[in-house]
Amino acid sequence: MEKILNPKREMWSEILARPQIKNDDLVKICKDVFADIIKDGDKAVVKYTSSFDQVDIDHIQVTETEFEDAEQQVSIELKFAIREAYKNISTFHSLQKAEKIEFISPDGFRCWQEARGIEKVGLYIPGGSAPLFSTVLMLAIPASLSGCQEIILCTPPNKSGQINPAILWTARLCGVTQVYKVGGIQAIGALTFGTESIPRVYKIFGPGNQYVTAAKQLANQYGVAIDMPAGPSEVMVVADHSSCPAFIAADLLSQAEHGPDSQVVLVTPEIDLLEKVEKELQEQLAALPRESIAIKALENSKFIVLNDLDECMQLANEYGAEHLILCIENYNERVPEVINAGSVFLGNYSPESAGDYASGTNHTLPTNGFAKAYSGVNMDAFCKKITFQEISEEGLKSLAPTIEIMAENEQLIAHKRAVEIRVQNLK
Amino acid sequence: MEKILNPKREMWSEILARPQIKNDDLVKICKDVFADIIKDGDKAVVKYTSSFDQVDIDHIQVTETEFEDAEQQVSIELKFAIREAYKNISTFHSLQKAEKIEFISPDGFRCWQEARGIEKVGLYIPGGSAPLFSTVLMLAIPASLSGCQEIILCTPPNKSGQINPAILWTARLCGVTQVYKVGGIQAIGALTFGTESIPRVYKIFGPGNQYVTAAKQLANQYGVAIDMPAGPSEVMVVADHSSCPAFIAADLLSQAEHGPDSQVVLVTPEIDLLEKVEKELQEQLAALPRESIAIKALENSKFIVLNDLDECMQLANEYGAEHLILCIENYNERVPEVINAGSVFLGNYSPESAGDYASGTNHTLPTNGFAKAYSGVNMDAFCKKITFQEISEEGLKSLAPTIEIMAENEQLIAHKRAVEIRVQNLK
Repeated sequence: MEKILNPKREMWSEILARPQIKNDDLVKICKDVFADIIKDGDKAVVKYTSSFDQVDIDHIQVTETEFEDAEQQVSIELKFAIREAYKNISTFHSLQKAEKIEFISPDGFRCWQEARGIEKVGLYIPGGSAPLFSTVLMLAIPASLSGCQEIILCTPPNKSGQINPAILWTARLCGVTQVYKVGGIQAIGALTFGTESIPRVYKIFGPGNQYVTAAKQLANQYGVAIDMPAGPSEVMVVADHSSCPAFIAADLLSQAEHGPDSQVVLVTPEIDLLEKVEKELQEQLAALPRESIAIKALENSKFIVLNDLDECMQLANEYGAEHLILCIENYNERVPEVINAGSVFLGNYSPESAGDYASGTNHTLPTNGFAKAYSGVNMDAFCKKITFQEISEEGLKSLAPTIEIMAENEQLIAHKRAVEIRVQNLK
Repeated sequence: MEKILNPKREMWSEILARPQIKNDDLVKICKDVFADIIKDGDKAVVKYTSSFDQVDIDHIQVTETEFEDAEQQVSIELKFAIREAYKNISTFHSLQKAEKIEFISPDGFRCWQEARGIEKVGLYIPGGSAPLFSTVLMLAIPASLSGCQEIILCTPPNKSGQINPAILWTARLCGVTQVYKVGGIQAIGALTFGTESIPRVYKIFGPGNQYVTAAKQLANQYGVAIDMPAGPSEVMVVADHSSCPAFIAADLLSQAEHGPDSQVVLVTPEIDLLEKVEKELQEQLAALPRESIAIKALENSKFIVLNDLDECMQLANEYGAEHLILCIENYNERVPEVINAGSVFLGNYSPESAGDYASGTNHTLPTNGFAKAYSGVNMDAFCKKITFQEISEEGLKSLAPTIEIMAENEQLIAHKRAVEIRVQNLK
């Protein structure tokens, strides 16, 4: 890791710069795949699954029998754990549900806002070594609570054409309506344009590798909404004298094991802490199965020492971390100072893992500094808020002069006329 | 206009298709302008303002003196009208302000969500013939209420290098912090990368022509958030026996005068209504200064007759109109059926103009069917919602088995260890 002591303020943005990701080549590949899907539908999906994932699927949609098999295959212990997480995630997200808000003017009109679930949403769950059933919880629970009608999940099959049973079991638990054995660019293409089997959706959610990320960006250009732009996962720990070096090391490692490009940053006014955390890192690393990945990520990590906690908080806001852990004594006093972050973990006993799995907050969060403009996935992401207005005859008479003068000054005379013609009718 | 009587359901999507907009050529232009702005900053902004807008500006930022002059130039009558609109828009948007929501678990942990205003936002206000001060209200009021720190407005100067005084006066009224005399692609580029004069922002809002739209899309690819994708403005009127043909015609015209590509659709089960509305259109058209624009837009408009109101509502949802006017007798009964729309106007006395200017709802709305996945601009658009969690020692003990089992099953052992190491410490 790189240690940086009391850097000048004008150096901060350079120190905090994320790696640039170029995806020009990927865009070309995505465009070709998309064009094939538009032309050949399912046939193209099957073709690319064969060439990219080396597996031949003859039935894209997961069948009832496969769901029943999954039910048998998931351990009772894991089902219990998933149900516990489900309970907390549902409770927290239910509280976010948008209520109707209404403005009743004494002048005779009312305006209100009501939320509607997006009718068709696509959830992408990556494949690879680990079956990310936790991401199914994080996306399907708010989709279901928001009243989305069709919740379509795509995830790549393994080499024998199967989906991990924990993913299938969780999908059913959370109200996913259809699951398709398709991953990568071809999954995003199918959700964007629709095929004979896979319906077109209005918004696509979920993490993925660089191919999926590029495909989602391209889907967005074709008019499909996406949850947020993506980059490598990241954590920033702000620590002081009160924090436990072993815990900090464990949190840094839980981020580092995600991938070699994970971003790991420790910021503190306590220079002594660096050595202690480093020692803990070495000890804990050895016990990890994903040691080599974590070592790679740690090589790019940064330990930054600043003058005081005020500066640490300012730097945290300049970085805008996906996960921000405030391992400091008076953390609640610092909450109002947090402006840019995806999700914040307070004190010594709030590890990132809690939010990743079970406490109730969402783990689909803005990376790469996008926390400066984007929220993590929440209930808002699955609904549209529509405004309504009902104006009485009296109401329109009272609003008329305002509308007429403004429309006239904007030289939109038909806008003015639409009011005048009604008011004349009332005379 | 095209009249379509009882079309088959499978024809709906074809009938409702919007014109395809190609912007491949524009992307190339935008990329060149952006590259120049990265390299030359203000110099490039001045250069493009000279070549695209045929005006030489030596001072990009609007000065205090110019604001003072604007104060003198705006009529008392217009100021009064803008203040009336301001009052309603502020009141309605204040009600949308995200409250802190909190989940306190009896097991010893709590999760909550708090909103933070996006620190730096850019508002784009188009130039051209009409000074769109109403759009300043619609963007700057929620930005200001959301606590955005820097609210930066860009708008093209006229041929003598001036900004319309009503825009300046409204900007100051609404808490805009800086105004720059820059429009088009170069304005979006400056907001994306920053120049010596113009700060880089995190999110860009506002309407614009095809150049601005393409530039915003490109800005989005460079990591800047945007309010929503754009297309031509549109209205759909659903009418029955209770509606007044003259009012419908006036509403259709107020949409049609926006531009020749405006989308205007009337849907009704009453075949007799078509002729009456057509007659009204002819009469009212003649009185409009923007008659030629409106005629062009009306040429592409569609009058659709369906079997009953149920079908009309289904078609309205398939279209997903930016503005949906329900000129029907029992409109309140139909509100729950509205799934896809930007903003909805109910009854004979709720013209679109009311929402465009003064009733309180926002007029920056999703066009082109984007209402299926996007909300109009509201308070959410100017803030990020951040989640926080505070877990007690007891709380972590209670969550530990769930997190550990899930992490182990996802093969993320460092995630599991981050919990184990804390729980061991508590023994």
